[in-house]
Amino acid sequence: MVTDWESRAKAKREAILNSIPEKWRVQKIPSADEQKDVTGAYIQQFLSEKEVAITETDAVGIAEKVAAGEWSAVDVTEAFCHRASLAHQLVNCLHETFFDAALASAKELDEYYAQNKKTVGPLHGVPVSLKDQFHVKGVETTMGYVGWIGTFEGKPDDPRKGTYESEMVRELRALGAVLYCKTSVPHTLMSGETINNIIGYTWNPKNRYLCSGGSSGGEGALIGLKGSPGGFGTDIGGSIRIPAAFNGLFGIRPTSGRLPYEGMANSMDGQNSILSVVGPLATTARGVRLLAKSILSAKPWLHDPLVVDMPWRDAQEQAIFDIIKSSSDKGQLSFAVMKSDGVVNPQPPVARAINMVVEALGKAGHKVIEWKPPSHKRLLEIAFKTWIYDGGKDVHDAFALSGETMSPQIKMSYGDKPIEQFTAAQVAANNVDKRRFQKEYLDYWNSTAQETGTGQPVDGVISALAPYPAARPELYRYYGYSVWVNGLDYTSVVVPVTTSDKSVDKYADGYTPINDQDKEVVDAYDAELYDGAHVSVQVVGRRFTEEKMLAIAEYIGQLVGK
Amino acid sequence: MVTDWESRAKAKREAILNSIPEKWRVQKIPSADEQKDVTGAYIQQFLSEKEVAITETDAVGIAEKVAAGEWSAVDVTEAFCHRASLAHQLVNCLHETFFDAALASAKELDEYYAQNKKTVGPLHGVPVSLKDQFHVKGVETTMGYVGWIGTFEGKPDDPRKGTYESEMVRELRALGAVLYCKTSVPHTLMSGETINNIIGYTWNPKNRYLCSGGSSGGEGALIGLKGSPGGFGTDIGGSIRIPAAFNGLFGIRPTSGRLPYEGMANSMDGQNSILSVVGPLATTARGVRLLAKSILSAKPWLHDPLVVDMPWRDAQEQAIFDIIKSSSDKGQLSFAVMKSDGVVNPQPPVARAINMVVEALGKAGHKVIEWKPPSHKRLLEIAFKTWIYDGGKDVHDAFALSGETMSPQIKMSYGDKPIEQFTAAQVAANNVDKRRFQKEYLDYWNSTAQETGTGQPVDGVISALAPYPAARPELYRYYGYSVWVNGLDYTSVVVPVTTSDKSVDKYADGYTPINDQDKEVVDAYDAELYDGAHVSVQVVGRRFTEEKMLAIAEYIGQLVGK
Repeated sequence: MVTDWESRAKAKREAILNSIPEKWRVQKIPSADEQKDVTGAYIQQFLSEKEVAITETDAVGIAEKVAAGEWSAVDVTEAFCHRASLAHQLVNCLHETFFDAALASAKELDEYYAQNKKTVGPLHGVPVSLKDQFHVKGVETTMGYVGWIGTFEGKPDDPRKGTYESEMVRELRALGAVLYCKTSVPHTLMSGETINNIIGYTWNPKNRYLCSGGSSGGEGALIGLKGSPGGFGTDIGGSIRIPAAFNGLFGIRPTSGRLPYEGMANSMDGQNSILSVVGPLATTARGVRLLAKSILSAKPWLHDPLVVDMPWRDAQEQAIFDIIKSSSDKGQLSFAVMKSDGVVNPQPPVARAINMVVEALGKAGHKVIEWKPPSHKRLLEIAFKTWIYDGGKDVHDAFALSGETMSPQIKMSYGDKPIEQFTAAQVAANNVDKRRFQKEYLDYWNSTAQETGTGQPVDGVISALAPYPAARPELYRYYGYSVWVNGLDYTSVVVPVTTSDKSVDKYADGYTPINDQDKEVVDAYDAELYDGAHVSVQVVGRRFTEEKMLAIAEYIGQLVGK
Repeated sequence: MVTDWESRAKAKREAILNSIPEKWRVQKIPSADEQKDVTGAYIQQFLSEKEVAITETDAVGIAEKVAAGEWSAVDVTEAFCHRASLAHQLVNCLHETFFDAALASAKELDEYYAQNKKTVGPLHGVPVSLKDQFHVKGVETTMGYVGWIGTFEGKPDDPRKGTYESEMVRELRALGAVLYCKTSVPHTLMSGETINNIIGYTWNPKNRYLCSGGSSGGEGALIGLKGSPGGFGTDIGGSIRIPAAFNGLFGIRPTSGRLPYEGMANSMDGQNSILSVVGPLATTARGVRLLAKSILSAKPWLHDPLVVDMPWRDAQEQAIFDIIKSSSDKGQLSFAVMKSDGVVNPQPPVARAINMVVEALGKAGHKVIEWKPPSHKRLLEIAFKTWIYDGGKDVHDAFALSGETMSPQIKMSYGDKPIEQFTAAQVAANNVDKRRFQKEYLDYWNSTAQETGTGQPVDGVISALAPYPAARPELYRYYGYSVWVNGLDYTSVVVPVTTSDKSVDKYADGYTPINDQDKEVVDAYDAELYDGAHVSVQVVGRRFTEEKMLAIAEYIGQLVGK
């Protein structure tokens, strides 16, 4: 028997597929066994030469070409709509398409350009994809919940339905960006895998035995397939960085209060011990920078009450460029490396990627010390409490709207039914614990000035972003490597480093798991299956160091050849 | 029968008094009937000519004189220790004195200066007073609680007892400030009057029938009597601005995250919907600026995990100075005035002060429009909930430590015993309500660009800070005029405007109170009793506009002759 929620989910799933023009349909979608990697040559076969040229140009390149009049916004938009359509058919990465509206706005941009001989803003003609938490007029936001179909955040009669736009959407339009699709998320947003009852599972395009990451998993997969040059995700426990890492992208988790979250849908809204933050993912570091810097040029603090009045600070970025330039033979930046957080060790490909970065930095003359911070275990206990302050009430209420089933990935955290809530005093106590831990960590960071030889504390910390290059379905179990950054509200940028290589990425003979959690991670590894998957690291900076960390991430990317 | 807590409170009260050297004791403290106003000539009679000259110089002047070698840090310190001692005897404004330690550090500063021909920092030799939430080594922090005597924040065996220092204390010392006393607060900090079982009631030195304000009431009274050129208070509902206003001072409530609260004692610590913030009060606007700017020069974001990486921005201040200079005949700044919040009308002296400011701004060529914001009543409901999230648990626990009685001022808010706590989901819902209100308010603020004639939204809002010039004991009942600023996390600076004048400050004949709350305020007014009291207003700016609002406050102070 097909239940009501199943039929509603199916109808929505089909509507998404049917929104793709017939001419862009792929006749037969190969299985993962038939075609593990659908990036590169595989997807290119469905595209014209010009479409390939456009879609394999990064956001900065596109902005330049359109600004120079070489490409029209319409041509660019059409190419990305096509490639995004292919991407969705191959890996299930879209929740909404609005290609007609996109082409209409591209046409307006072209007309403006033709008349005024200038662009409307720094993103003129750049397609930008959005995680399905952004509200866009004329388009639904389901966030993967069947119960949200045909409603505004679950409320059927809310007057904002179909008309409301999130603050950043308004800003992106004003900056000249072309919005054309919204990307898949795990229902609740609380998973490193992307699964829901509407679109099913979002696969990793580079290795379709693996997940695309989560919760911005649709963004990761789409941009990984170059169906978008860049887009925006959100991150409360790794949700920008995990998909960036798993798909070989750059992605930034800014400090909370830097970019505008105003007017977006969310889970457990109002939990304010650890805030979800919004930030860009893109194929290049400079693409990430363009998106972040452009948003800040719109002065979001005048429109989002939680954003700090802090424009993009060129000087902070330039300071890093200057050091890098001057340090050709003597190192002047310094880093710490955290090879393990003491709870779980990264799988072999990730461990190798970290070593590659450390080696590259060393060769370039920069000092790298070992990171021996206050116990991450303590921090994780504090952070994970914030996910269940309400005992799962918000999450279970959302499932109850339709009666749909909860995926195993979410059940792992939220169980079969709500549990007792925290009291206000318990929340407050956790806030105090968190602040004390943050202070200890800050003091530790400062103390590294004694070790670096530069007279300054480390400029960044090199760390795994997840123990996995990318996780296998239902095997994303350990979030410690991403969550510590959220707990400390640090700025972190993911840097793609290499790909998994079955010939070298093996656990050492006789490797003994350090505990049960580590054993789960060890057991989840399969060198053969993982072969070819992207492998990335994160570079973590202090709070509000977006300009600095992006400059460093770009530099590290260059050092490792990305 | 004297209870244990009464005898402990008495012993502490006597210890504070006994810490004042015999030579500085006042033989007979006059009653309020005998001597209503103990500022100016009255207190000067106990001081030498040089002591008067020193203590009636503002913080900037003192820093300059010491930096120029005209005054020694020791002479300055001794003068303020003397005057602070007199102040305490006259109005009960101190919780701790540490004059010997202060003189020892002043001596060190003088030696450094003699040897190096320069100062250690911008506050070299400037005495700075601290509200009794700051931890200073060798000194207790009671926060007015009898149960905290001889403990560290109520914990008798905490190893930090007697040794720990708050982050800002460390910074102030490094900047050259001389710390010499800690000032009185209402137990719990949650009152606009300053009363506790240790020091009793802190009176307003300008009018000893009235309160000195709260919760930084000791700071207000001490600086009002020029027993300190400037000091630091905290503000979660008006606690910096109320004492500043009631004592004719400038005081700033910065946006949260601007100045470092790290390591201070607090009530209901961990409630993070509306954060208490720390900020300076001083006799002049430039004194406030010196203290704020100096702290930021110590880069507090490297030492407090909640502080934003935002140095003092000279450009933002200069922009205001430039406009003011250029606007001698045509106004270029614009303001809104809120004459009433619709709940309670300000008493006549406050209403007159607001009119004086509006008139002065108009005469100087600046546009002033009427402020018609979203309902403050709604905002106040949201804000007051945050005070009782824990149902009064923290407050009642603190009183239970000693069994001491709660003052009526506090009982008004917290009752006889704790009530039910908010659940985590209820706290989250209130956070969402708050954010939505903030967004509406922001949009309203932006909308004033249509009215100002400058093409820009208003630069600031002129508002009462309290309905009273200063409140009579047990009659501080309405907090709406201060709390709205905390609810919105705006920057606000108090500007002293005038003094109450019984000959003009009267309710209009036939004035009808708009509701019961307004009637309470009307009934609390007594033109005769209030005569001579300071009257102030606040100038409110958007978030993170400390430089701008201080520049504007200074300018308004000049316009009204302060």
